[in-house]
Amino acid sequence: MATAGERQKHLSSLELKKLVVERLARRGVSLEDMAALVYFVQKKYIDRLTMEDCRSSVEHVLEKREVQNAILTGLSLDEMAERGFLEEPLSSMVRSDDGLYGIDEVLALSIVNVYGSIGLTNFGYLDKMKPGIIGQVNDRKGKKVNTFLDDLLAAVVAAAAARLAHRDRDGCLLLDDGAAACSLD
Amino acid sequence: MATAGERQKHLSSLELKKLVVERLARRGVSLEDMAALVYFVQKKYIDRLTMEDCRSSVEHVLEKREVQNAILTGLSLDEMAERGFLEEPLSSMVRSDDGLYGIDEVLALSIVNVYGSIGLTNFGYLDKMKPGIIGQVNDRKGKKVNTFLDDLLAAVVAAAAARLAHRDRDGCLLLDDGAAACSLD
Amino acid sequence: MATAGERQKHLSSLELKKLVVERLARRGVSLEDMAALVYFVQKKYIDRLTMEDCRSSVEHVLEKREVQNAILTGLSLDEMAERGFLEEPLSSMVRSDDGLYGIDEVLALSIVNVYGSIGLTNFGYLDKMKPGIIGQVNDRKGKKVNTFLDDLLAAVVAAAAARLAHRDRDGCLLLDDGAAACSLD
Amino acid sequence: MATAGERQKHLSSLELKKLVVERLARRGVSLEDMAALVYFVQKKYIDRLTMEDCRSSVEHVLEKREVQNAILTGLSLDEMAERGFLEEPLSSMVRSDDGLYGIDEVLALSIVNVYGSIGLTNFGYLDKMKPGIIGQVNDRKGKKVNTFLDDLLAAVVAAAAARLAHRDRDGCLLLDDGAAACSLD
Repeated sequence: MATAGERQKHLSSLELKKLVVERLARRGVSLEDMAALVYFVQKKYIDRLTMEDCRSSVEHVLEKREVQNAILTGLSLDEMAERGFLEEPLSSMVRSDDGLYGIDEVLALSIVNVYGSIGLTNFGYLDKMKPGIIGQVNDRKGKKVNTFLDDLLAAVVAAAAARLAHRDRDGCLLLDDGAAACSLD
Repeated sequence: MATAGERQKHLSSLELKKLVVERLARRGVSLEDMAALVYFVQKKYIDRLTMEDCRSSVEHVLEKREVQNAILTGLSLDEMAERGFLEEPLSSMVRSDDGLYGIDEVLALSIVNVYGSIGLTNFGYLDKMKPGIIGQVNDRKGKKVNTFLDDLLAAVVAAAAARLAHRDRDGCLLLDDGAAACSLD
Repeated sequence: MATAGERQKHLSSLELKKLVVERLARRGVSLEDMAALVYFVQKKYIDRLTMEDCRSSVEHVLEKREVQNAILTGLSLDEMAERGFLEEPLSSMVRSDDGLYGIDEVLALSIVNVYGSIGLTNFGYLDKMKPGIIGQVNDRKGKKVNTFLDDLLAAVVAAAAARLAHRDRDGCLLLDDGAAACSLD
Repeated sequence: MATAGERQKHLSSLELKKLVVERLARRGVSLEDMAALVYFVQKKYIDRLTMEDCRSSVEHVLEKREVQNAILTGLSLDEMAERGFLEEPLSSMVRSDDGLYGIDEVLALSIVNVYGSIGLTNFGYLDKMKPGIIGQVNDRKGKKVNTFLDDLLAAVVAAAAARLAHRDRDGCLLLDDGAAACSLD
């Protein structure tokens, strides 16, 4: 149903990443907030891990189109629920973060899976304990609808941590030599 | 962010099923349309399969809350894209059924998984070949946004077929005796 | 490659459940061990929850063929690694529970998904914190290979808890009246 | 349960890829076999696609540790079933490729997901139609156990095709200029 005007040039994955970072900022979340949680989760396994490694890993996760699409869709559902644009009973389920509504976890899982199943455990742990920015967006739920946002953040952090675990094994962290054997992603 | 007025009694799974059937009807899809595809897919494996078995299986799939939530969310995204309520670039991706936008498959997968991974192959096949009602809703894409709908239908049919395969093994189809050993679902 | 002798009658889902319970017992895990964790996880959400509800829910989860197949396959991989039947490098990965080997999580996820995505968070939390029997089988890892077992247990518990959450909403716990509206599973 | 002798240096992702290619060759499958199917699936969408793009994409998919682990585990299960090392009833299920045994699809899905959900439809279609090498390994099932192998191949091909679709959108195929904006993977 795309009309002529809509048939615009598709955005590249880097352009989409920039836009996703802006949308997250609109919901009160920065790259630094997410990088800090990656450091919190992964530092105990990788001794020489730096905050710069963590920030870089979050940025690479946000360059993946599957991740971008999950975030844009989830934030859109949160915002439409906030404005009252969703029909009942979906509106109440999303607005109240109904415990039996699991589509937020479904979108989050599609993010985690891009870096392999080893991120699943961290995702669940982060979603339950809600440290750092995840807890902050959860606490804003009185005024905002953040039903999708907190799960999406836990998923991005878990994926970025899994990516670092894979790269550490291959000697591909930022400060490593021998980066020739490492793919950029 | 639920307000007092919203804190209504939660709908039961049977009430939600009724509502999901109505929403599918609003998008031009009936239980019979889906049952016919289940019969088409599964008849070659279960000789004594009846259309009544197929319709009953579709109805049981639609009683699962995970399935209901995926359908309500997907149809809502289709309808909001149709009305122009989604922000760019999500709006164009959903309206044009962009091949790189896979969130429709993500929601569909959460439906298939409820009856086990054996439905995956049928889901992919149905989504590619688009027989019956799946092709019809796909053909309406000039006038309607059915980006989520066709994947959701393929998933419901694949799940209902997988459910029948499991029940056939256990002697639990409608005409079987010994139904005592069979769970209702 | 089934030979004539192998073309035996397929086992029913109830026969397979009995066998799965025996195999879990062989690895030192009882139904009560799993039911206790379900109670631990879900009691805070369902005030009138009984241990009998929890045990019944674990039993229903173990009647699902997808769950049975994941458990039989995972336990088989643990036992073959233990006996030294796996080829390198898979043998070392499974024997040492390599943090980058995520196939145990992949099998676990297929169990959780049968009761919907709402179990994902509990799965990750249980897999990280390892309470009760999950911690016990993890502690035996010096003598046994339990790489798959601990993830499988976390998944069964998370699925059984998710099942109870769905049934509680519909008034279908063991002590509820009006069970007529409830499917047996 | 890793013993001292086993605590060997972990293999890098490139070393594991080499080993996976050898194991696939042992089961009668070459990189060219898989590249040909990627071309078959994706040529209609990317006009300037070359066989070299397809082969390169298969190689990149095989560099992912999640993919390597799924393949090593699945092939190991096929081979152990072939040698009669699996216990009943798992042995019969794997040897006969029981239609209700879906763990082969579960492992395959973990491969597809690494390149996003857009590969799901192609996976199901390939698994159903069994073109090229997938049909050939399926036809060998009288003499060999290839229960996992055919699903794994369909998954690698679907993932490699999804990867090409993403890269084509970003102008990152082999012959494209401007590769500076493209990650190596």
